[in-house]
Amino acid sequence: MNITISREVLLENLNIISRGLPSKSPMPILTGIKFEATDTELYMTSSNTDISVEVLIANQELIIKEPGKTVVPGKFFIEIIRKINAKNINLYLIEDRTLVIKADRIEYKLHIMDYMDYPKIDFVTLENPLILNAPVLKSLIKETVFATAASEKKPILTGVNFKHSQGNLIATATDSFRLSQKIVKINEYNDFNITIPNKSLDELLRAIDNYEDEIELYFSNNKLLAKYKNVLFQTRLLDGNYPDTSKLIPNEFPIVIKFNKDELVEAVERVSLLSPRDKEKDREITYSIIKLSIKKDSIIEISTTNATIGDAKEELIPTNIEANNPIVIGFSSRYLLEALRSFISTEISLNLSGEIRPFIIRGDKDSNLTQLILPVRMD
Amino acid sequence: MNITISREVLLENLNIISRGLPSKSPMPILTGIKFEATDTELYMTSSNTDISVEVLIANQELIIKEPGKTVVPGKFFIEIIRKINAKNINLYLIEDRTLVIKADRIEYKLHIMDYMDYPKIDFVTLENPLILNAPVLKSLIKETVFATAASEKKPILTGVNFKHSQGNLIATATDSFRLSQKIVKINEYNDFNITIPNKSLDELLRAIDNYEDEIELYFSNNKLLAKYKNVLFQTRLLDGNYPDTSKLIPNEFPIVIKFNKDELVEAVERVSLLSPRDKEKDREITYSIIKLSIKKDSIIEISTTNATIGDAKEELIPTNIEANNPIVIGFSSRYLLEALRSFISTEISLNLSGEIRPFIIRGDKDSNLTQLILPVRMD
Repeated sequence: MNITISREVLLENLNIISRGLPSKSPMPILTGIKFEATDTELYMTSSNTDISVEVLIANQELIIKEPGKTVVPGKFFIEIIRKINAKNINLYLIEDRTLVIKADRIEYKLHIMDYMDYPKIDFVTLENPLILNAPVLKSLIKETVFATAASEKKPILTGVNFKHSQGNLIATATDSFRLSQKIVKINEYNDFNITIPNKSLDELLRAIDNYEDEIELYFSNNKLLAKYKNVLFQTRLLDGNYPDTSKLIPNEFPIVIKFNKDELVEAVERVSLLSPRDKEKDREITYSIIKLSIKKDSIIEISTTNATIGDAKEELIPTNIEANNPIVIGFSSRYLLEALRSFISTEISLNLSGEIRPFIIRGDKDSNLTQLILPVRMD
Repeated sequence: MNITISREVLLENLNIISRGLPSKSPMPILTGIKFEATDTELYMTSSNTDISVEVLIANQELIIKEPGKTVVPGKFFIEIIRKINAKNINLYLIEDRTLVIKADRIEYKLHIMDYMDYPKIDFVTLENPLILNAPVLKSLIKETVFATAASEKKPILTGVNFKHSQGNLIATATDSFRLSQKIVKINEYNDFNITIPNKSLDELLRAIDNYEDEIELYFSNNKLLAKYKNVLFQTRLLDGNYPDTSKLIPNEFPIVIKFNKDELVEAVERVSLLSPRDKEKDREITYSIIKLSIKKDSIIEISTTNATIGDAKEELIPTNIEANNPIVIGFSSRYLLEALRSFISTEISLNLSGEIRPFIIRGDKDSNLTQLILPVRMD
């Protein structure tokens, strides 16, 4: 193998390849990037077994003097290319043992790995794609993925469920204490019901961060392949049936309170400074329970009491309120803040149906997004 | 106590007070901020026993309705004030048990601590100051403090030594493998020889970050007090005699190589990506040993060899070179990078006197700054 490539093109593609690169792996070969140069094209591949990424470079910024194949230490290769300032970079193999990286007065030699050790990666057949616009796919992921379970107790809950039926694509995530759901209309396509690991979605979001055009999605039994530009991004799916969440969402809300979103976020952030820290046993997750109540003159009070430190109390004037009864409801401020941040709307509504019934959040400009939070009992 | 104060003035002063505030302390009272409001002035004090800070607020942005004293939970108080958006903040005590923080529709109540438990802090008497300009003091600290020892094996080396004699103020730091020394001329003053803990200097740097005017320094046996604006910043000094480093610095350099600093930094950063990682037993300190050699045509080669990963080699054209002999010298790239970053000069010189003799770095625009590095033997 002997190729010369524009450093900019190489780096841009390495940034995508890095999404599939494990820092450690029980299979050391997977810490490498697989290169395959044909007479006219360069393929680079990475895989951490959950995610596999392949890019194809075939443009005028690439000159292939000699085709060839190799696997190079991924982390080091990327770090070196990132730090090199040159316009073009020459990569060639010596004796199938060493990759030389050459640019200007710079010469790096990396011990390569055995190409034959690299596992064969089966990408889903490129037939019958579902086509989504990148901004739609990004919003489906961003507005739900934070509500997936962090713990592996119920593995299926660590993913976002994507379900299609009758033109509605529904993305749902829940950790059993809250739920996020976003619905979009899509063109005619087979029904499907798949659950994608949250880590894969985080990496996919990073990979398509600057991409705004169409993405093709290909499905198989246990994999999903996203194809865009010159990139194949494939993830495994989670096994098992996603729980039916349709009955969780109440449909009557006697109390509806509307807020300016930023005012509510600021007040909740401040009050939660003093909320008692309830940490999960093994992890540093704080729930920061706070209390919301309706006072006279339709003023909303957000408050918390911390036996060690003190109390916090803020009054907020809602932009609108419909309420027949007073209510006091307690919940995790972290859940509320994460839910609020998923909305683009400047005005959001809290829709309540009882002190220990789930409440939902909607936004005037996010018509198909529902965030649900389960309250905690306040004693 | 009952005061109303501009949030901006309060926060600015709390940012300075936070430099002396321990996050944890064997004396819980020290995690609090001491408030003392007289009829016309407000004092706030913090101390972590090494560092003590006091600010005095007496301006039109402060209204004292009722004098008083208290100690409030430092971290929480600062976080709340940081997050409040209001223009003015009202602070008052209820029953000597609770501090109320009030602003707009916001009301926080903090359990206060017992004022009587707060230890008396002796500040050095404000007599006979040495006056330095803040930029001079900052450069003395910034250009040396990184070379202090991180380990407590020889406690005196964890500080920067400040020595005055005959108008020369010499700041010296060494961890026995490298040395930083900066000399400035000062006005007539008594001789002194003190060593200030590196952590105190880091905090002082942060406290005076935006301050560019005169600073008064007051000395006592075991303390140094810096006074500027409305701030007293006091630190304990390290016990013991600082080692005599004057004989460490060679004075003849048969080889002098000048570089563009940025070019050298970039090359060293890249090459050190591949340098073997020699970690200190307990800590994550990497030395990243690299090699510098003079090749034919006065080209300088920077290189490293890593048995696991591969080799790196870069050629640099120095801006000037005086050398009678070839030389190959090995050293920590981390030490070289930290030393180089202390110079404002765009051209720096490496001054060498032998493959296993210390070499020094100087900059054309940093006339009184010397950085010294001890090479390692290359086999």
